[in-house]
Amino acid sequence: MNVTRRFRQLAVAVVSVCGLWASAQSGRVITTDVPERPSGQEDMVGYAAAPVDTVRVGFIGLGMRGAGAVERFIHIPGTKIVALCDIDMPKVERSQKALADAGVPAAAVYGGGEDSWKELCERPDIDLVYIVTDWKHHAPMALYAMEQGKHVAIEVPAAMNLDEIWALVNTSERTRKHCMMLENCVYDFFEMNTLNMAQHGLFGEVLHTEGSYIHNLDEFWPYYWNNWRMDYNREHRGDVYPTHGIGPACQLLDIHRGDRMTTLVSMDTKAVNGPAYIEKSTGKAPESYANGDHTMTMIRTANGKTIHIQHDVVTPRPYSRMYQLTGTKGFANKYPTEGYAFEPEQISSEEMPDHENLTAHGFISPEQQKALTERYMHPIIKEVGEVAKKVGGHGGMDYIMDYRLIYCMRNGLPLDMDVYDLAEWCSLIPLSALSIANGSAPVEVPDFTRGAWNKLPAYRHAFK
Amino acid sequence: MNVTRRFRQLAVAVVSVCGLWASAQSGRVITTDVPERPSGQEDMVGYAAAPVDTVRVGFIGLGMRGAGAVERFIHIPGTKIVALCDIDMPKVERSQKALADAGVPAAAVYGGGEDSWKELCERPDIDLVYIVTDWKHHAPMALYAMEQGKHVAIEVPAAMNLDEIWALVNTSERTRKHCMMLENCVYDFFEMNTLNMAQHGLFGEVLHTEGSYIHNLDEFWPYYWNNWRMDYNREHRGDVYPTHGIGPACQLLDIHRGDRMTTLVSMDTKAVNGPAYIEKSTGKAPESYANGDHTMTMIRTANGKTIHIQHDVVTPRPYSRMYQLTGTKGFANKYPTEGYAFEPEQISSEEMPDHENLTAHGFISPEQQKALTERYMHPIIKEVGEVAKKVGGHGGMDYIMDYRLIYCMRNGLPLDMDVYDLAEWCSLIPLSALSIANGSAPVEVPDFTRGAWNKLPAYRHAFK
Repeated sequence: MNVTRRFRQLAVAVVSVCGLWASAQSGRVITTDVPERPSGQEDMVGYAAAPVDTVRVGFIGLGMRGAGAVERFIHIPGTKIVALCDIDMPKVERSQKALADAGVPAAAVYGGGEDSWKELCERPDIDLVYIVTDWKHHAPMALYAMEQGKHVAIEVPAAMNLDEIWALVNTSERTRKHCMMLENCVYDFFEMNTLNMAQHGLFGEVLHTEGSYIHNLDEFWPYYWNNWRMDYNREHRGDVYPTHGIGPACQLLDIHRGDRMTTLVSMDTKAVNGPAYIEKSTGKAPESYANGDHTMTMIRTANGKTIHIQHDVVTPRPYSRMYQLTGTKGFANKYPTEGYAFEPEQISSEEMPDHENLTAHGFISPEQQKALTERYMHPIIKEVGEVAKKVGGHGGMDYIMDYRLIYCMRNGLPLDMDVYDLAEWCSLIPLSALSIANGSAPVEVPDFTRGAWNKLPAYRHAFK
Repeated sequence: MNVTRRFRQLAVAVVSVCGLWASAQSGRVITTDVPERPSGQEDMVGYAAAPVDTVRVGFIGLGMRGAGAVERFIHIPGTKIVALCDIDMPKVERSQKALADAGVPAAAVYGGGEDSWKELCERPDIDLVYIVTDWKHHAPMALYAMEQGKHVAIEVPAAMNLDEIWALVNTSERTRKHCMMLENCVYDFFEMNTLNMAQHGLFGEVLHTEGSYIHNLDEFWPYYWNNWRMDYNREHRGDVYPTHGIGPACQLLDIHRGDRMTTLVSMDTKAVNGPAYIEKSTGKAPESYANGDHTMTMIRTANGKTIHIQHDVVTPRPYSRMYQLTGTKGFANKYPTEGYAFEPEQISSEEMPDHENLTAHGFISPEQQKALTERYMHPIIKEVGEVAKKVGGHGGMDYIMDYRLIYCMRNGLPLDMDVYDLAEWCSLIPLSALSIANGSAPVEVPDFTRGAWNKLPAYRHAFK
């Protein structure tokens, strides 16, 4: 018995058959079609539209998230709320009243019909369509709006499958319209400041990042229109809601700004609490339930970095987006407690009190963390952090997201998140499902930029 | 363009070819040989040897860990330290002196030669050989000792490849000798008490567990005899040190006591800090360096549970074994801060102060945690926790480990960890390497019990 030798023979056999080790690997990787870019069409990396003095906005979807978005926009300078739409007219009236209460001019209203939103998209006096409906309507609405010459901002996840993702990429490229996903978690305070530290090299080379959506939704399920969210989980395996975790993880790794995700592997637990919720709330166990209670994904990049992502919306866990980074010279962790660790030489005594007690084996002290956070506060946080906290929306990050979208549009700058961020982050939904359906086989992450991922040297926010 | 449809067609095609979905999955899974059990040989699940009144012990390896083990055994009732061995005679003399200082009879001493340890194994007056050498010598020494009729306890990892693992399994089964790996981390206080809570159903069904070895070894590398540990990392990719993470994770999931690991997938980052350390300490960059700075593994079990394991010994991170469990009714997390969360109905008001404020969305309060920990303190911690803290050894867990090993041998009970725990936990070393070498392909975890994994209904410690 010599098992090791047998492996070696087997490996050699595979290599012999495939010619090269690289081929031997890719032979095991599941690939998906990358549609060729239509001739005459260009990528959107670094794309900026002409400046707009006042951004005229139409909102589609005024439920839990949409109503809040309208109220935030009341406070954002250089915007005009032109139109409001929801399939449910009382929701439209509620947002209209919010405008009146704030002393803002009334908006045009649309609603009541399945296709009312199309009329909103067709208005000539709108620059930006802001889409906050259920997941399944995101991409169709965004595609239609771009075809009507509008920039679009779409709630997460903006697309649920590769058809939708490639359609959004192609339509954005062809129409030269911004297609941004409203991923708010990249704008949270700890994330922004940590990103700034990373961009100043405090962590050395960032090698590994983590993120998740761990949020028990038991109290929320009944409030989704037509039960769409639970229905989606019942019907789909894989990480169906990855963007809050993967967004910050990708920004730290400069994804499609010098690096790109290449391979993904996913695994899940069986479904227990999901179907139990349905049985408890309806009195009847579902005949089938696809989504595992806990789903994990590992991703490798072209530059040899890794990402770990988790999804869990049904078990009794404290809220966590994990948000963790491992660098060659430092470490950051947000949940359950915010903390940093550094190689002592990374931080000068001017930057940090009690500097001589730094050790790579422990977290820096609360006093040191406070000093470091003040020194490396992200310029955007410095600019609007205090206003954001006052206006609110998940503690302020929603406001910062909206503010930056409008700031960049008004100044003719590239947006913080482009259509390829949308594509990459949403692609975890179909690709994780594909991996799990094939026994956790590795799946190739397509290059949604189709060759442009190395055009920019690093991820940076644009400023006028 | 309809990419989704193409997937479905592809998936259907695979299914058609393979006949069944299960086959389609296993077609992508790398399998390794499971040697047939020799006829007349039986499994060791639940095995107990005859009671021994005084356990006579011989120690091989008296470096960093071995010297500490000898000093702990001075305090363990019912033991006799019969013999000491190290290739380096001054180390033998150091431990001999420790015995004298404690007023304990001198032991026979062996050392100085590459094969001195064999003479120790051959002594007729030893019941247990306790092996604390470098990784590469663990399995050969254990095999030889069992052939000499001795029970063996082996430091982690006890085996580094599948040849060694299967040899240990077969030799233990044939000789009917205990072959236990000295995995101390399953005996730490939080882990023991949490395991007790899990076994009392406080977390509902445990669905997912996590563990890791995240420990920056920069200060330790120079102290390993002959540089064996850094050499091993330089030469081997994969999770080369998984047992501290996987041990507690497997006990929570009753692995080979009603469930078993079936599939494993691993992924790593490139190697940056590993080779940088060599360059810094020797002045010369290594020509090659195999081990990625950060390595991750995901594992699925036959009952649809998952495990996540990480390894990182070169980046500046605070020490962490992660130790986390997600259950259908509760959650536990050890690093960076110990915490629990539960569905309110899991805990009665008698068990916990301020019970009405329980929420599945947040950690229980420090007062609640204290009350719960006292109520569910593991019987073994109750019995020897205080003594363990006094004797020490990683805060007490080393003492508890030794105490339990001797307790079970003296009472003729099955040990807390058997040769299949050793096999399963160590198998991550070769299997993670195999997955990574094949582009993160899924690898089948062999059933090391060869059919006996379902014989016991759950994992429990044995008591007289």
